[in-house]
Amino acid sequence: MKLNENYAKMPGSYLFSEIARRVAAFSSEHMGREIISLGIGDVTLPLVPAVTEAMAKAVAEMGVAATFRGYGPEQGYAFLRDAIVEHDFASLGIGITAADIFISDGAKSDCGNIVDLFDADNRVAVCDPVYPVYVDTNAMAGRAGEYDSETGRWSNLIYLSCVKENGFIPTPPKEKADLIYLCFPNNPTGTTATREQLAEWVDYALYHDSILLFDAAYEAFITDPNIPHSIYEIPGSEHCAIEFRSFSKTAGFTGTRCGYTVIPAALERHGQSLRAMWNRRQCTKFNGTAYVVQRGAEAVYTPEGQAQIRANIEIYRNNAALIRQGLEDAGLTVFGGRNAPYIWAETPNGMSSWDTFDLLLREAGVVTTPGAGFGPCGEGYFRLSAFGDPQKVPQAMTRIRIALGR
Amino acid sequence: MKLNENYAKMPGSYLFSEIARRVAAFSSEHMGREIISLGIGDVTLPLVPAVTEAMAKAVAEMGVAATFRGYGPEQGYAFLRDAIVEHDFASLGIGITAADIFISDGAKSDCGNIVDLFDADNRVAVCDPVYPVYVDTNAMAGRAGEYDSETGRWSNLIYLSCVKENGFIPTPPKEKADLIYLCFPNNPTGTTATREQLAEWVDYALYHDSILLFDAAYEAFITDPNIPHSIYEIPGSEHCAIEFRSFSKTAGFTGTRCGYTVIPAALERHGQSLRAMWNRRQCTKFNGTAYVVQRGAEAVYTPEGQAQIRANIEIYRNNAALIRQGLEDAGLTVFGGRNAPYIWAETPNGMSSWDTFDLLLREAGVVTTPGAGFGPCGEGYFRLSAFGDPQKVPQAMTRIRIALGR
Repeated sequence: MKLNENYAKMPGSYLFSEIARRVAAFSSEHMGREIISLGIGDVTLPLVPAVTEAMAKAVAEMGVAATFRGYGPEQGYAFLRDAIVEHDFASLGIGITAADIFISDGAKSDCGNIVDLFDADNRVAVCDPVYPVYVDTNAMAGRAGEYDSETGRWSNLIYLSCVKENGFIPTPPKEKADLIYLCFPNNPTGTTATREQLAEWVDYALYHDSILLFDAAYEAFITDPNIPHSIYEIPGSEHCAIEFRSFSKTAGFTGTRCGYTVIPAALERHGQSLRAMWNRRQCTKFNGTAYVVQRGAEAVYTPEGQAQIRANIEIYRNNAALIRQGLEDAGLTVFGGRNAPYIWAETPNGMSSWDTFDLLLREAGVVTTPGAGFGPCGEGYFRLSAFGDPQKVPQAMTRIRIALGR
Repeated sequence: MKLNENYAKMPGSYLFSEIARRVAAFSSEHMGREIISLGIGDVTLPLVPAVTEAMAKAVAEMGVAATFRGYGPEQGYAFLRDAIVEHDFASLGIGITAADIFISDGAKSDCGNIVDLFDADNRVAVCDPVYPVYVDTNAMAGRAGEYDSETGRWSNLIYLSCVKENGFIPTPPKEKADLIYLCFPNNPTGTTATREQLAEWVDYALYHDSILLFDAAYEAFITDPNIPHSIYEIPGSEHCAIEFRSFSKTAGFTGTRCGYTVIPAALERHGQSLRAMWNRRQCTKFNGTAYVVQRGAEAVYTPEGQAQIRANIEIYRNNAALIRQGLEDAGLTVFGGRNAPYIWAETPNGMSSWDTFDLLLREAGVVTTPGAGFGPCGEGYFRLSAFGDPQKVPQAMTRIRIALGR
């Protein structure tokens, strides 16, 4: 019996589990001390009324024989796929159809499971810093090579350094990458990509026959009309891109679990349709998203739902502005946080990012995310999330200022 | 860019998708003709009041800031894991703890995803006939070798023939299998395994260092006190078995999506804990099951919930008895359907199982599942599910009798 030996190569534990562990340890040592979390990107505002009303109605339907639903389509219900097409794509003039949409229990599952479709020896490119799921899922699948604990990098991955000098926007590498993970608005740096920057990646992918894995989980935070919401706003992308979307940050679904993956009909390699492959994967290893949850997601697209989620996003955008200002007032250099829910800040006085994490937890009672948790280029930075409780964000910023002696 | 080439080796489409396709085609040709489904094992009775009340309460909590829940533990909430330990294991004297329980969106996801933990070149043993997910997920992972369309078998799998002669209960093979899928009460044959038969498999696994992947999705249908509900009723199994459980058939959750996987702390290979590996997998590629759904599952374990789901299971058990009787009256030889929700019948006059499927759809308007869809040894049989609408089961059996000329 042989285990998947790649698991044993994985360094430490998953970033947010490690943060949770440190916070729990601190909490149990300092009972009664109020901790404000601006760390993990978890929402704090409740589900909006349009969503809870739709879910309550769906729960009631499930209790009556005439309206009960058993197994749903593995790809998701037509009512939700159609609403997505109309509101998220047709409204932008994008020709994505319902058959290209696959509803799931969240973008994390999809980002993780998508690696099933690819051979182990593809070259994978990721940004550095990066959402750890892209790296870890490829490492688990044996596509990352060996981990070097000195550099914090895997031998077979191509790292696209995102640093102050390039505005944290990666440019295509000279070498050929087969699979490229891109996330805009970016987690963790809060930067956004222009149409021209994305077009450069689409050109690269079309030239090299690569596939872009585009994570658009934070698109709802874009207000600037010049910033694309979807990779499919770029001509040619339907031949080279898969897009991941989530209701988590758009509509507060982090504990309700719904997202979707888009694979255009035109996306083929070696005569095989990737949409057909994903369909096969989902039909074999997944049994659809809960009906009650899909009805909740559908309600996001009603006029009431749209108005209500927009109001919540506005609150989080205001959080982002307060955090930017607070960190600047504390003397720090700050990036992101515009058209994006994450603020990326340089650590004070060149401290390490985990030391900064521990300092801010201990001295300010504020949970942040250490930049190094997102990759070596994240060292020297930390991330703050705009999804915190709006009542507590001003206090958190005051505490951080005091902890940093300003 | 290389695709996972194993996908291209997969024959046809996933069984239940193919059935759905044929039924849809028939429906659109015969509008107005009422079709009774006894095919896919999908429940028809609505969620019980204890569950819908708990879910409605949870939905309301999600709409209020003070009780809103964001990301939950990837492993599931303690309230549900504790209830499972108490009712499903401690009550049987089994020492499974909450840390051994991983809540998910269903047993199909878990059965599919568990293959992530194992190296590609393990030898996998499956029953024939078998739930297609076990075979297909291993084929997708490159563990099945090549598909032979003539025999309907994969070159690297070990097939454990379940035939009339061995009472559809597999015995351990002479050769060494590394991973062995067992499902009792069985899908599709509706047979159950005795304590002695399971002990023989545990002995085999301990001797060969194999791992048993034990699917107990149908355990709620067991009424005979001598039949084990869990593999962990067999001494030593904590060193060699992973168990999958589901709320789908126990509590009508097919459209609500909740299940769980049990990996005992004692299950280690080569110094690695499989529980720790699965924890890492779930923390990296999964983000927990919806809070609302977990509250619904928790309610299954309340006294009211237990009484209500027991009443539903009794209705399905009555369906099973009617189906057995109906098929016998139609002159067929019948297996299963006792302590199990599936009835396994020989096809009439040696017809092929897909021909029988088409005949019963066309002439009786009843959807069945062709035995061949579960593997070569399923040829000559078809499966009926006891989860159909109890109002319609008698009619379905009358129609089948007439269609078969009795």
